[in-house]
Amino acid sequence: MKQLPSYIKKENDIYWLTEDERENLKISYRIREIVYFEKSPYQDVMILDSYDFGRMLVLDGVVQTTSIDGYIYNEMISHIPLNFHPNPKRVLIIGGGDLGAAQEVTKYDQVEKIDLVEIDQLVVEASKKYLSEISGDLSDPRVELIYHDGVEFVKNHHNQYDVIIVDSSDPIGPAKQLFEYEFYHHIYRALKEDGIMVCQSQSPLLHFDVLKQTYKHIQTLFPITRLYMTTVPTYPGGFWSFTLGSKKYDQLLPNIPFDKQTRYVNKDILYHSFSLPEFVHHKLNEI
Amino acid sequence: MKQLPSYIKKENDIYWLTEDERENLKISYRIREIVYFEKSPYQDVMILDSYDFGRMLVLDGVVQTTSIDGYIYNEMISHIPLNFHPNPKRVLIIGGGDLGAAQEVTKYDQVEKIDLVEIDQLVVEASKKYLSEISGDLSDPRVELIYHDGVEFVKNHHNQYDVIIVDSSDPIGPAKQLFEYEFYHHIYRALKEDGIMVCQSQSPLLHFDVLKQTYKHIQTLFPITRLYMTTVPTYPGGFWSFTLGSKKYDQLLPNIPFDKQTRYVNKDILYHSFSLPEFVHHKLNEI
Repeated sequence: MKQLPSYIKKENDIYWLTEDERENLKISYRIREIVYFEKSPYQDVMILDSYDFGRMLVLDGVVQTTSIDGYIYNEMISHIPLNFHPNPKRVLIIGGGDLGAAQEVTKYDQVEKIDLVEIDQLVVEASKKYLSEISGDLSDPRVELIYHDGVEFVKNHHNQYDVIIVDSSDPIGPAKQLFEYEFYHHIYRALKEDGIMVCQSQSPLLHFDVLKQTYKHIQTLFPITRLYMTTVPTYPGGFWSFTLGSKKYDQLLPNIPFDKQTRYVNKDILYHSFSLPEFVHHKLNEI
Repeated sequence: MKQLPSYIKKENDIYWLTEDERENLKISYRIREIVYFEKSPYQDVMILDSYDFGRMLVLDGVVQTTSIDGYIYNEMISHIPLNFHPNPKRVLIIGGGDLGAAQEVTKYDQVEKIDLVEIDQLVVEASKKYLSEISGDLSDPRVELIYHDGVEFVKNHHNQYDVIIVDSSDPIGPAKQLFEYEFYHHIYRALKEDGIMVCQSQSPLLHFDVLKQTYKHIQTLFPITRLYMTTVPTYPGGFWSFTLGSKKYDQLLPNIPFDKQTRYVNKDILYHSFSLPEFVHHKLNEI
Protein backbone atom coordinates (compact mmCIF):
# COMPACT_ATOMS: atom_id res chain seq x y z
CA MET A 1 0.00 0.00 0.00
CA LYS A 2 1.20 3.51 -0.76
CA GLN A 3 2.46 5.71 2.03
CA LEU A 4 -0.26 6.76 4.44
CA PRO A 5 -1.08 10.47 4.70
CA SER A 6 -0.51 12.33 7.96
CA TYR A 7 -4.18 12.24 8.99
CA ILE A 8 -3.94 8.47 9.46
CA LYS A 9 -1.86 7.38 12.42
CA LYS A 10 -0.98 4.00 13.84
CA GLU A 11 -0.74 3.73 17.64
CA ASN A 12 -0.16 0.38 19.35
CA ASP A 13 -1.10 -1.36 16.13
CA ILE A 14 -4.40 0.52 15.88
CA TYR A 15 -5.22 2.94 13.05
CA TRP A 16 -6.84 6.29 13.84
CA LEU A 17 -8.18 8.84 11.38
CA THR A 18 -7.91 12.37 12.77
CA GLU A 19 -9.98 15.10 11.17
CA ASP A 20 -8.25 18.36 11.84
CA GLU A 21 -9.77 20.60 9.18
CA ARG A 22 -10.84 22.92 11.99
CA GLU A 23 -8.02 24.62 13.82
CA ASN A 24 -9.55 24.19 17.26
CA LEU A 25 -11.34 20.85 17.15
CA LYS A 26 -10.04 17.41 16.26
CA ILE A 27 -12.13 14.29 15.89
CA SER A 28 -10.40 10.90 15.84
CA TYR A 29 -12.06 7.71 14.64
CA ARG A 30 -10.68 4.28 15.46
CA ILE A 31 -10.31 2.40 12.20
CA ARG A 32 -10.76 -1.33 11.75
CA GLU A 33 -9.51 -1.43 8.16
CA ILE A 34 -8.34 0.79 5.35
CA VAL A 35 -10.60 -0.67 2.69
CA TYR A 36 -9.58 1.56 -0.21
CA PHE A 37 -7.05 4.30 -0.79
CA GLU A 38 -6.20 5.99 -4.07
CA LYS A 39 -5.09 9.44 -5.09
CA SER A 40 -7.31 10.93 -7.79
CA PRO A 41 -6.35 14.04 -9.79
CA TYR A 42 -8.48 16.00 -7.31
CA GLN A 43 -8.00 14.50 -3.87
CA ASP A 44 -7.15 11.50 -1.67
CA VAL A 45 -10.05 9.05 -1.87
CA MET A 46 -10.47 6.56 0.99
CA ILE A 47 -13.02 4.09 2.20
CA LEU A 48 -12.34 3.29 5.86
CA ASP A 49 -14.10 0.79 8.08
CA SER A 50 -14.49 2.51 11.47
CA TYR A 51 -15.57 0.95 14.75
CA ASP A 52 -18.34 3.36 15.75
CA PHE A 53 -19.63 4.57 12.37
CA GLY A 54 -19.11 1.62 10.04
CA ARG A 55 -17.70 2.26 6.58
CA MET A 56 -16.94 5.88 5.74
CA LEU A 57 -16.07 7.81 2.59
CA VAL A 58 -13.12 10.06 3.43
CA LEU A 59 -11.82 12.73 1.02
CA ASP A 60 -8.51 14.45 1.83
CA GLY A 61 -8.89 13.20 5.38
CA VAL A 62 -12.40 14.60 5.94
CA VAL A 63 -15.34 12.25 6.61
CA GLN A 64 -18.02 12.78 3.94
CA THR A 65 -20.56 10.12 4.77
CA THR A 66 -20.81 7.06 7.00
CA SER A 67 -22.88 3.91 7.02
CA ILE A 68 -24.41 4.81 10.38
CA ASP A 69 -25.74 8.26 9.49
CA GLY A 70 -25.19 8.96 5.78
CA TYR A 71 -28.83 8.23 5.00
CA ILE A 72 -29.95 11.23 7.08
CA TYR A 73 -28.15 13.72 4.87
CA ASN A 74 -29.02 11.92 1.62
CA GLU A 75 -32.71 11.64 2.46
CA MET A 76 -32.94 15.27 3.58
CA ILE A 77 -31.25 16.73 0.51
CA SER A 78 -33.51 14.66 -1.82
CA HIS A 79 -36.99 14.12 -0.40
CA ILE A 80 -37.56 17.76 0.57
CA PRO A 81 -37.17 19.24 -2.97
CA LEU A 82 -38.96 16.25 -4.52
CA ASN A 83 -41.97 16.95 -2.31
CA PHE A 84 -41.80 20.69 -2.97
CA HIS A 85 -42.10 20.29 -6.73
CA PRO A 86 -45.47 18.85 -7.86
CA ASN A 87 -44.07 17.05 -10.90
CA PRO A 88 -40.30 16.57 -10.93
CA LYS A 89 -39.28 14.81 -14.16
CA ARG A 90 -35.70 15.90 -14.82
CA VAL A 91 -33.34 15.96 -11.86
CA LEU A 92 -29.71 17.08 -11.80
CA ILE A 93 -27.35 16.19 -8.96
CA ILE A 94 -24.06 18.10 -8.78
CA GLY A 95 -21.48 16.20 -6.73
CA GLY A 96 -23.05 13.38 -4.76
CA GLY A 97 -20.38 10.90 -5.86
CA ASP A 98 -21.34 8.52 -3.05
CA LEU A 99 -24.57 8.00 -5.06
CA GLY A 100 -26.72 8.18 -1.91
CA ALA A 101 -28.80 11.15 -3.08
CA ALA A 102 -29.33 9.55 -6.52
CA GLN A 103 -30.53 6.40 -4.77
CA GLU A 104 -33.20 8.45 -2.95
CA VAL A 105 -34.33 10.24 -6.14
CA THR A 106 -34.92 6.88 -7.90
CA LYS A 107 -37.70 6.22 -5.37
CA TYR A 108 -39.91 8.68 -7.29
CA ASP A 109 -41.71 7.05 -10.23
CA GLN A 110 -42.52 10.37 -11.90
CA VAL A 111 -38.81 11.17 -12.29
CA GLU A 112 -37.79 10.32 -15.85
CA LYS A 113 -34.09 11.13 -15.86
CA ILE A 114 -31.43 11.77 -13.24
CA ASP A 115 -28.13 13.33 -14.35
CA LEU A 116 -25.37 12.99 -11.78
CA VAL A 117 -22.38 15.22 -12.48
CA GLU A 118 -19.40 14.32 -10.31
CA ILE A 119 -15.94 15.64 -11.00
CA ASP A 120 -14.12 12.69 -9.47
CA GLN A 121 -14.74 9.28 -11.05
CA LEU A 122 -12.76 7.53 -8.31
CA VAL A 123 -15.27 8.66 -5.67
CA VAL A 124 -18.10 7.01 -7.60
CA GLU A 125 -16.15 3.83 -8.26
CA ALA A 126 -15.00 3.47 -4.66
CA SER A 127 -18.51 4.11 -3.33
CA LYS A 128 -20.09 1.65 -5.75
CA LYS A 129 -17.64 -1.06 -4.88
CA TYR A 130 -17.06 -0.56 -1.16
CA LEU A 131 -19.89 1.56 0.23
CA SER A 132 -23.06 -0.14 -0.93
CA GLU A 133 -24.89 0.77 2.31
CA ILE A 134 -24.94 4.31 0.92
CA SER A 135 -24.71 3.89 -2.84
CA GLY A 136 -27.07 0.95 -3.22
CA ASP A 137 -26.56 -0.98 -6.45
CA LEU A 138 -27.84 1.97 -8.50
CA SER A 139 -28.80 -0.17 -11.46
CA ASP A 140 -31.71 2.16 -12.23
CA PRO A 141 -31.47 3.00 -15.98
CA ARG A 142 -32.79 6.54 -15.41
CA VAL A 143 -29.48 7.52 -13.76
CA GLU A 144 -26.74 8.84 -16.02
CA LEU A 145 -23.29 9.27 -14.47
CA ILE A 146 -21.38 12.19 -15.98
CA TYR A 147 -17.78 12.75 -14.91
CA HIS A 148 -17.40 16.46 -15.43
CA ASP A 149 -16.86 19.73 -13.65
CA GLY A 150 -20.20 20.73 -12.14
CA VAL A 151 -19.71 24.45 -12.72
CA GLU A 152 -18.93 23.94 -16.42
CA PHE A 153 -21.84 21.56 -16.81
CA VAL A 154 -24.55 23.90 -15.49
CA LYS A 155 -23.09 26.78 -17.48
CA ASN A 156 -23.91 24.88 -20.68
CA HIS A 157 -27.42 23.72 -19.83
CA HIS A 158 -30.37 26.09 -19.92
CA ASN A 159 -33.98 25.62 -18.91
CA GLN A 160 -33.71 21.86 -18.58
CA TYR A 161 -34.21 20.71 -15.01
CA ASP A 162 -37.12 20.61 -12.59
CA VAL A 163 -34.91 19.99 -9.56
CA ILE A 164 -31.18 20.59 -9.05
CA ILE A 165 -29.50 19.13 -5.97
CA VAL A 166 -26.07 20.50 -5.08
CA ASP A 167 -24.52 17.77 -2.96
CA SER A 168 -21.09 19.27 -2.40
CA SER A 169 -18.35 18.65 0.10
CA ASP A 170 -16.98 21.47 2.26
CA PRO A 171 -16.10 24.79 0.56
CA ILE A 172 -12.42 23.90 0.25
CA GLY A 173 -10.62 21.91 -2.47
CA PRO A 174 -12.61 20.89 -5.55
CA ALA A 175 -15.95 22.07 -4.11
CA LYS A 176 -14.92 25.69 -3.49
CA GLN A 177 -16.56 27.02 -6.66
CA LEU A 178 -19.85 25.42 -5.68
CA PHE A 179 -20.32 28.12 -3.05
CA GLU A 180 -19.84 31.12 -5.32
CA TYR A 181 -22.48 33.45 -6.76
CA GLU A 182 -21.70 32.69 -10.38
CA PHE A 183 -22.45 29.03 -9.86
CA TYR A 184 -25.92 29.74 -8.44
CA HIS A 185 -26.58 32.07 -11.31
CA HIS A 186 -25.88 29.23 -13.76
CA ILE A 187 -28.06 26.91 -11.69
CA TYR A 188 -30.91 29.41 -11.94
CA ARG A 189 -30.61 29.37 -15.74
CA ALA A 190 -30.35 25.58 -15.92
CA LEU A 191 -33.68 25.25 -14.12
CA LYS A 192 -37.03 25.33 -15.90
CA GLU A 193 -39.32 28.28 -15.16
CA ASP A 194 -40.87 26.53 -12.14
CA GLY A 195 -37.65 24.82 -11.04
CA ILE A 196 -36.25 24.27 -7.56
CA MET A 197 -32.68 23.99 -6.30
CA VAL A 198 -31.32 22.83 -2.99
CA CYS A 199 -27.80 22.82 -1.60
CA GLN A 200 -26.13 21.90 1.66
CA SER A 201 -25.21 25.10 3.49
CA GLN A 202 -23.12 23.81 6.42
CA SER A 203 -23.66 24.16 10.17
CA PRO A 204 -25.59 27.21 11.41
CA LEU A 205 -23.59 27.00 14.63
CA LEU A 206 -20.02 26.63 13.38
CA HIS A 207 -20.09 27.90 9.79
CA PHE A 208 -22.68 30.64 9.77
CA ASP A 209 -20.50 32.71 7.40
CA VAL A 210 -20.91 30.01 4.71
CA LEU A 211 -24.63 29.64 5.37
CA LYS A 212 -25.10 33.41 5.21
CA GLN A 213 -23.22 33.74 1.92
CA THR A 214 -25.12 30.84 0.34
CA TYR A 215 -28.48 32.12 1.56
CA LYS A 216 -27.73 35.60 0.21
CA HIS A 217 -26.73 34.28 -3.23
CA ILE A 218 -29.91 32.24 -3.49
CA GLN A 219 -32.10 35.03 -2.12
CA THR A 220 -30.68 37.41 -4.72
CA LEU A 221 -31.57 35.04 -7.57
CA PHE A 222 -34.76 33.26 -6.54
CA PRO A 223 -38.08 34.78 -5.49
CA ILE A 224 -38.50 32.07 -2.82
CA THR A 225 -35.71 31.05 -0.41
CA ARG A 226 -36.19 28.56 2.43
CA LEU A 227 -33.80 27.17 5.01
CA TYR A 228 -34.30 23.76 6.56
CA MET A 229 -32.28 21.76 9.02
CA THR A 230 -31.40 18.32 10.22
CA THR A 231 -28.81 16.64 12.42
CA VAL A 232 -25.80 14.84 10.99
CA PRO A 233 -23.95 13.37 13.98
CA THR A 234 -20.63 12.96 12.17
CA TYR A 235 -20.47 16.54 10.92
CA PRO A 236 -18.86 18.95 13.38
CA GLY A 237 -21.55 21.20 14.73
CA GLY A 238 -24.19 18.45 14.71
CA PHE A 239 -26.83 20.66 13.11
CA TRP A 240 -26.76 20.81 9.36
CA SER A 241 -28.56 23.26 7.10
CA PHE A 242 -29.88 23.13 3.54
CA THR A 243 -30.96 26.13 1.51
CA LEU A 244 -33.69 25.80 -1.08
CA GLY A 245 -34.31 28.28 -3.89
CA SER A 246 -37.56 28.09 -5.82
CA LYS A 247 -38.85 30.00 -8.84
CA LYS A 248 -42.53 29.35 -8.20
CA TYR A 249 -43.55 26.83 -5.51
CA ASP A 250 -43.42 28.20 -2.00
CA GLN A 251 -44.14 25.24 0.26
CA LEU A 252 -44.17 21.47 0.55
CA LEU A 253 -47.07 19.89 -1.29
CA PRO A 254 -50.02 19.63 1.06
CA ASN A 255 -51.24 16.16 2.08
CA ILE A 256 -48.37 14.18 0.60
CA PRO A 257 -48.96 10.46 0.95
CA PHE A 258 -45.33 9.79 1.88
CA ASP A 259 -44.81 6.13 1.05
CA LYS A 260 -41.07 5.83 0.37
CA GLN A 261 -38.88 3.32 2.18
CA THR A 262 -36.61 5.49 4.30
CA ARG A 263 -34.61 5.34 7.49
CA TYR A 264 -34.84 8.98 8.57
CA VAL A 265 -37.49 10.96 6.70
CA ASN A 266 -41.21 10.43 7.28
CA LYS A 267 -44.21 12.70 6.91
CA ASP A 268 -43.65 14.41 10.28
CA ILE A 269 -39.97 15.02 9.61
CA LEU A 270 -40.75 16.34 6.12
CA TYR A 271 -43.15 19.02 7.32
CA HIS A 272 -41.19 19.93 10.43
CA SER A 273 -37.76 20.34 8.90
CA PHE A 274 -38.57 23.99 8.18
CA SER A 275 -39.18 24.70 11.90
CA LEU A 276 -36.06 26.61 12.84
CA PRO A 277 -34.62 27.27 16.29
CA GLU A 278 -34.77 30.80 17.69
CA PHE A 279 -31.07 31.47 17.19
CA VAL A 280 -31.33 30.62 13.49
CA HIS A 281 -34.33 32.95 13.05
CA HIS A 282 -32.33 35.71 14.69
CA LYS A 283 -29.28 35.12 12.53
CA LEU A 284 -31.38 34.98 9.35
CA ASN A 285 -33.12 38.21 10.23
CA GLU A 286 -29.72 39.88 10.28
CA ILE A 287 -29.15 38.96 6.63
CA MET B 1 -1.85 24.68 39.98
CA LYS B 2 -2.24 21.00 40.88
CA GLN B 3 -1.02 18.34 38.46
CA LEU B 4 -3.10 18.15 35.31
CA PRO B 5 -5.03 14.96 34.62
CA SER B 6 -4.17 12.82 31.58
CA TYR B 7 -7.11 14.12 29.51
CA ILE B 8 -5.47 17.55 29.35
CA LYS B 9 -2.35 17.68 27.21
CA LYS B 10 0.01 20.48 26.31
CA GLU B 11 1.44 20.45 22.76
CA ASN B 12 3.63 23.29 21.50
CA ASP B 13 2.43 25.44 24.38
CA ILE B 14 -1.24 24.81 23.51
CA TYR B 15 -3.65 22.97 25.83
CA TRP B 16 -5.99 20.33 24.40
CA LEU B 17 -8.80 18.53 26.24
CA THR B 18 -9.34 15.06 24.78
CA GLU B 19 -12.59 13.29 25.56
CA ASP B 20 -11.94 9.60 25.26
CA GLU B 21 -14.86 8.12 27.21
CA ARG B 22 -15.77 6.16 24.09
CA GLU B 23 -13.27 3.51 23.08
CA ASN B 24 -13.46 4.27 19.37
CA LEU B 25 -13.96 8.02 19.14
CA LYS B 26 -11.89 10.87 20.56
CA ILE B 27 -12.81 14.52 20.45
CA SER B 28 -10.14 17.11 21.19
CA TYR B 29 -10.89 20.74 22.00
CA ARG B 30 -8.27 23.45 21.82
CA ILE B 31 -8.26 25.26 25.14
CA ARG B 32 -7.53 28.94 25.63
CA GLU B 33 -7.44 28.81 29.42
CA ILE B 34 -8.00 26.47 32.34
CA VAL B 35 -10.30 28.77 34.27
CA TYR B 36 -11.03 26.50 37.23
CA PHE B 37 -9.86 23.08 38.38
CA GLU B 38 -10.67 21.37 41.68
CA LYS B 39 -11.18 17.80 42.79
CA SER B 40 -14.46 17.34 44.64
CA PRO B 41 -15.26 14.20 46.68
CA TYR B 42 -17.08 12.94 43.56
CA GLN B 43 -15.12 14.01 40.49
CA ASP B 44 -12.69 16.40 38.82
CA VAL B 45 -14.50 19.71 38.27
CA MET B 46 -13.16 22.02 35.56
CA ILE B 47 -14.23 25.15 33.76
CA LEU B 48 -12.27 25.47 30.52
CA ASP B 49 -12.32 28.29 28.01
CA SER B 50 -12.24 26.62 24.58
CA TYR B 51 -11.69 28.27 21.21
CA ASP B 52 -14.69 26.88 19.31
CA PHE B 53 -17.26 26.37 22.07
CA GLY B 54 -16.48 29.10 24.60
CA ARG B 55 -16.47 28.22 28.31
CA MET B 56 -17.28 24.61 29.13
CA LEU B 57 -18.10 22.68 32.30
CA VAL B 58 -15.99 19.50 32.25
CA LEU B 59 -16.46 16.70 34.80
CA ASP B 60 -13.87 13.91 34.93
CA GLY B 61 -12.71 15.00 31.49
CA VAL B 62 -16.14 14.86 29.84
CA VAL B 63 -17.75 18.03 28.46
CA GLN B 64 -21.12 18.60 30.17
CA THR B 65 -22.24 21.91 28.76
CA THR B 66 -20.76 24.74 26.72
CA SER B 67 -21.52 28.41 26.24
CA ILE B 68 -22.20 27.90 22.56
CA ASP B 69 -24.82 25.14 22.82
CA GLY B 70 -25.68 24.51 26.49
CA TYR B 71 -28.91 26.48 26.18
CA ILE B 72 -30.30 23.93 23.71
CA TYR B 73 -30.22 21.10 26.22
CA ASN B 74 -31.35 23.26 29.14
CA GLU B 75 -34.30 24.73 27.26
CA MET B 76 -35.41 21.35 25.93
CA ILE B 77 -35.31 19.57 29.28
CA SER B 78 -37.31 22.40 30.94
CA HIS B 79 -39.80 24.01 28.56
CA ILE B 80 -41.27 20.75 27.29
CA PRO B 81 -42.49 19.42 30.69
CA LEU B 82 -43.53 22.92 31.79
CA ASN B 83 -45.78 23.16 28.75
CA PHE B 84 -47.12 19.63 29.22
CA HIS B 85 -48.37 20.32 32.75
CA PRO B 86 -51.23 22.87 32.90
CA ASN B 87 -50.26 24.27 36.29
CA PRO B 88 -46.74 23.45 37.48
CA LYS B 89 -46.19 24.93 40.95
CA ARG B 90 -43.57 22.75 42.60
CA VAL B 91 -40.61 21.69 40.49
CA LEU B 92 -37.72 19.41 41.47
CA ILE B 93 -34.48 19.29 39.50
CA ILE B 94 -32.13 16.37 40.22
CA GLY B 95 -28.59 17.16 39.15
CA GLY B 96 -28.42 20.23 36.94
CA GLY B 97 -25.53 21.71 38.91
CA ASP B 98 -24.73 24.11 36.06
CA LEU B 99 -28.03 25.82 37.03
CA GLY B 100 -29.08 26.20 33.39
CA ALA B 101 -32.30 24.19 33.74
CA ALA B 102 -33.25 26.05 36.93
CA GLN B 103 -32.72 29.32 35.06
CA GLU B 104 -35.26 28.20 32.43
CA VAL B 105 -37.84 27.09 35.04
CA THR B 106 -37.75 30.52 36.72
CA LYS B 107 -39.25 31.94 33.50
CA TYR B 108 -42.64 30.50 34.55
CA ASP B 109 -44.55 32.82 36.89
CA GLN B 110 -46.91 30.08 38.09
CA VAL B 111 -43.99 28.07 39.51
CA GLU B 112 -43.85 28.74 43.27
CA LYS B 113 -40.81 26.70 44.34
CA ILE B 114 -37.87 25.05 42.58
CA ASP B 115 -35.81 22.54 44.57
CA LEU B 116 -32.46 21.77 42.94
CA VAL B 117 -30.76 18.70 44.40
CA GLU B 118 -27.14 18.41 43.26
CA ILE B 119 -24.71 16.03 44.90
CA ASP B 120 -21.63 18.10 44.12
CA GLN B 121 -21.49 21.59 45.60
CA LEU B 122 -18.30 22.41 43.68
CA VAL B 123 -20.16 22.06 40.35
CA VAL B 124 -22.68 24.68 41.44
CA GLU B 125 -20.04 27.03 42.83
CA ALA B 126 -17.82 26.78 39.75
CA SER B 127 -20.79 27.30 37.40
CA LYS B 128 -22.08 30.29 39.35
CA LYS B 129 -18.70 31.94 39.41
CA TYR B 130 -17.24 31.07 36.00
CA LEU B 131 -20.08 29.98 33.72
CA SER B 132 -22.68 32.70 33.98
CA GLU B 133 -23.64 32.29 30.28
CA ILE B 134 -25.32 29.07 31.41
CA SER B 135 -26.10 29.59 35.09
CA GLY B 136 -27.31 33.19 34.93
CA ASP B 137 -27.16 34.98 38.24
CA LEU B 138 -29.93 32.77 39.66
CA SER B 139 -30.93 35.27 42.29
CA ASP B 140 -34.56 34.12 42.06
CA PRO B 141 -35.75 33.48 45.64
CA ARG B 142 -37.96 30.55 44.50
CA VAL B 143 -34.86 28.41 43.87
CA GLU B 144 -33.55 26.36 46.80
CA LEU B 145 -30.13 24.71 46.32
CA ILE B 146 -29.90 21.41 48.20
CA TYR B 147 -26.54 19.61 48.21
CA HIS B 148 -27.63 16.03 48.65
CA ASP B 149 -27.73 12.66 46.94
CA GLY B 150 -30.61 12.77 44.44
CA VAL B 151 -31.61 9.14 44.96
CA GLU B 152 -31.85 9.57 48.74
CA PHE B 153 -33.74 12.82 48.35
CA VAL B 154 -36.55 11.46 46.16
CA LYS B 155 -36.84 8.38 48.37
CA ASN B 156 -37.88 10.61 51.26
CA HIS B 157 -40.36 12.85 49.45
CA HIS B 158 -43.82 11.64 48.55
CA ASN B 159 -46.59 13.25 46.53
CA GLN B 160 -44.97 16.69 46.49
CA TYR B 161 -43.95 17.72 42.99
CA ASP B 162 -45.78 18.67 39.80
CA VAL B 163 -42.70 18.32 37.61
CA ILE B 164 -39.42 16.47 38.22
CA ILE B 165 -36.51 17.10 35.85
CA VAL B 166 -33.65 14.59 35.96
CA ASP B 167 -30.69 16.51 34.55
CA SER B 168 -27.99 13.90 34.98
CA SER B 169 -24.57 13.41 33.46
CA ASP B 170 -23.66 10.16 31.66
CA PRO B 171 -24.52 6.85 33.39
CA ILE B 172 -21.04 6.44 34.83
CA GLY B 173 -19.57 7.83 38.06
CA PRO B 174 -21.90 9.69 40.44
CA ALA B 175 -24.86 9.62 38.00
CA LYS B 176 -25.00 5.82 37.55
CA GLN B 177 -27.87 5.32 40.02
CA LEU B 178 -29.97 7.91 38.16
CA PHE B 179 -30.50 5.38 35.36
CA GLU B 180 -31.79 2.51 37.53
CA TYR B 181 -35.36 1.30 37.96
CA GLU B 182 -35.51 1.95 41.71
CA PHE B 183 -34.76 5.62 41.18
CA TYR B 184 -37.66 6.05 38.73
CA HIS B 185 -39.91 4.25 41.17
CA HIS B 186 -39.05 6.83 43.84
CA ILE B 187 -39.58 9.62 41.34
CA TYR B 188 -43.05 8.26 40.60
CA ARG B 189 -43.91 8.40 44.30
CA ALA B 190 -42.42 11.87 44.75
CA LEU B 191 -44.76 13.23 42.05
CA LYS B 192 -48.31 14.38 42.74
CA GLU B 193 -51.13 12.35 41.20
CA ASP B 194 -51.00 14.34 37.95
CA GLY B 195 -47.22 14.80 37.95
CA ILE B 196 -44.76 14.64 35.08
CA MET B 197 -41.09 13.64 34.99
CA VAL B 198 -38.50 14.06 32.28
CA CYS B 199 -34.93 12.80 32.02
CA GLN B 200 -32.16 12.93 29.44
CA SER B 201 -31.88 9.50 27.82
CA GLN B 202 -28.69 9.83 25.73
CA SER B 203 -28.18 9.47 21.96
CA PRO B 204 -30.55 7.20 20.03
CA LEU B 205 -27.73 6.54 17.58
CA LEU B 206 -24.79 5.74 19.86
CA HIS B 207 -26.36 4.79 23.21
CA PHE B 208 -29.61 3.08 22.31
CA ASP B 209 -29.08 0.53 25.12
CA VAL B 210 -29.34 3.36 27.70
CA LEU B 211 -32.33 4.93 25.97
CA LYS B 212 -34.09 1.56 25.80
CA GLN B 213 -33.51 0.79 29.48
CA THR B 214 -34.69 4.25 30.55
CA TYR B 215 -37.77 4.12 28.32
CA LYS B 216 -38.68 0.66 29.65
CA HIS B 217 -38.37 1.76 33.30
CA ILE B 218 -40.60 4.77 32.70
CA GLN B 219 -43.08 2.83 30.59
CA THR B 220 -43.42 0.25 33.38
CA LEU B 221 -44.25 2.93 35.96
CA PHE B 222 -46.16 5.64 34.10
CA PRO B 223 -49.33 5.29 32.02
CA ILE B 224 -47.99 7.81 29.49
CA THR B 225 -44.42 7.69 28.08
CA ARG B 226 -43.17 10.03 25.35
CA LEU B 227 -39.78 10.38 23.68
CA TYR B 228 -38.62 13.67 22.25
CA MET B 229 -35.39 14.73 20.62
CA THR B 230 -33.07 17.58 19.92
CA THR B 231 -29.53 18.17 18.67
CA VAL B 232 -26.67 18.92 21.03
CA PRO B 233 -23.62 19.49 18.81
CA THR B 234 -21.05 18.86 21.55
CA TYR B 235 -22.51 15.51 22.60
CA PRO B 236 -21.16 12.57 20.59
CA GLY B 237 -23.93 11.28 18.42
CA GLY B 238 -25.35 14.76 17.77
CA PHE B 239 -28.93 13.68 18.39
CA TRP B 240 -30.04 13.73 21.98
CA SER B 241 -33.16 12.15 23.48
CA PHE B 242 -35.35 12.93 26.47
CA THR B 243 -37.95 10.57 27.94
CA LEU B 244 -41.04 11.97 29.59
CA GLY B 245 -43.28 10.01 31.96
CA SER B 246 -46.71 11.40 32.84
CA LYS B 247 -49.40 10.22 35.24
CA LYS B 248 -52.27 12.05 33.55
CA TYR B 249 -51.52 14.60 30.81
CA ASP B 250 -50.83 13.07 27.43
CA GLN B 251 -49.79 15.98 25.22
CA LEU B 252 -48.44 19.50 25.14
CA LEU B 253 -51.04 22.09 26.12
CA PRO B 254 -52.87 23.20 22.99
CA ASN B 255 -52.47 26.80 21.84
CA ILE B 256 -49.68 27.77 24.20
CA PRO B 257 -48.85 31.45 23.90
CA PHE B 258 -45.10 30.79 24.14
CA ASP B 259 -43.64 34.10 25.28
CA LYS B 260 -40.42 33.14 27.06
CA GLN B 261 -37.06 34.66 26.14
CA THR B 262 -35.14 31.74 24.69
CA ARG B 263 -32.34 31.04 22.23
CA TYR B 264 -33.47 27.62 20.94
CA VAL B 265 -37.07 26.77 21.82
CA ASN B 266 -40.03 28.50 20.19
CA LYS B 267 -43.59 27.40 19.52
CA ASP B 268 -42.66 25.41 16.40
CA ILE B 269 -39.78 23.63 18.10
CA LEU B 270 -41.97 22.85 21.11
CA TYR B 271 -44.66 21.08 19.11
CA HIS B 272 -42.27 19.39 16.69
CA SER B 273 -39.83 17.92 19.17
CA PHE B 274 -42.01 14.81 19.41
CA SER B 275 -41.67 14.15 15.64
CA LEU B 276 -39.25 11.25 15.58
CA PRO B 277 -37.15 9.95 12.68
CA GLU B 278 -38.07 6.61 11.13
CA PHE B 279 -35.14 4.74 12.67
CA VAL B 280 -36.20 5.85 16.15
CA HIS B 281 -39.79 4.69 15.56
CA HIS B 282 -38.45 1.32 14.45
CA LYS B 283 -36.18 0.96 17.45
CA LEU B 284 -38.95 1.99 19.86
CA ASN B 285 -41.34 -0.51 18.33
CA GLU B 286 -38.86 -3.23 19.23
CA ILE B 287 -39.15 -2.34 22.95
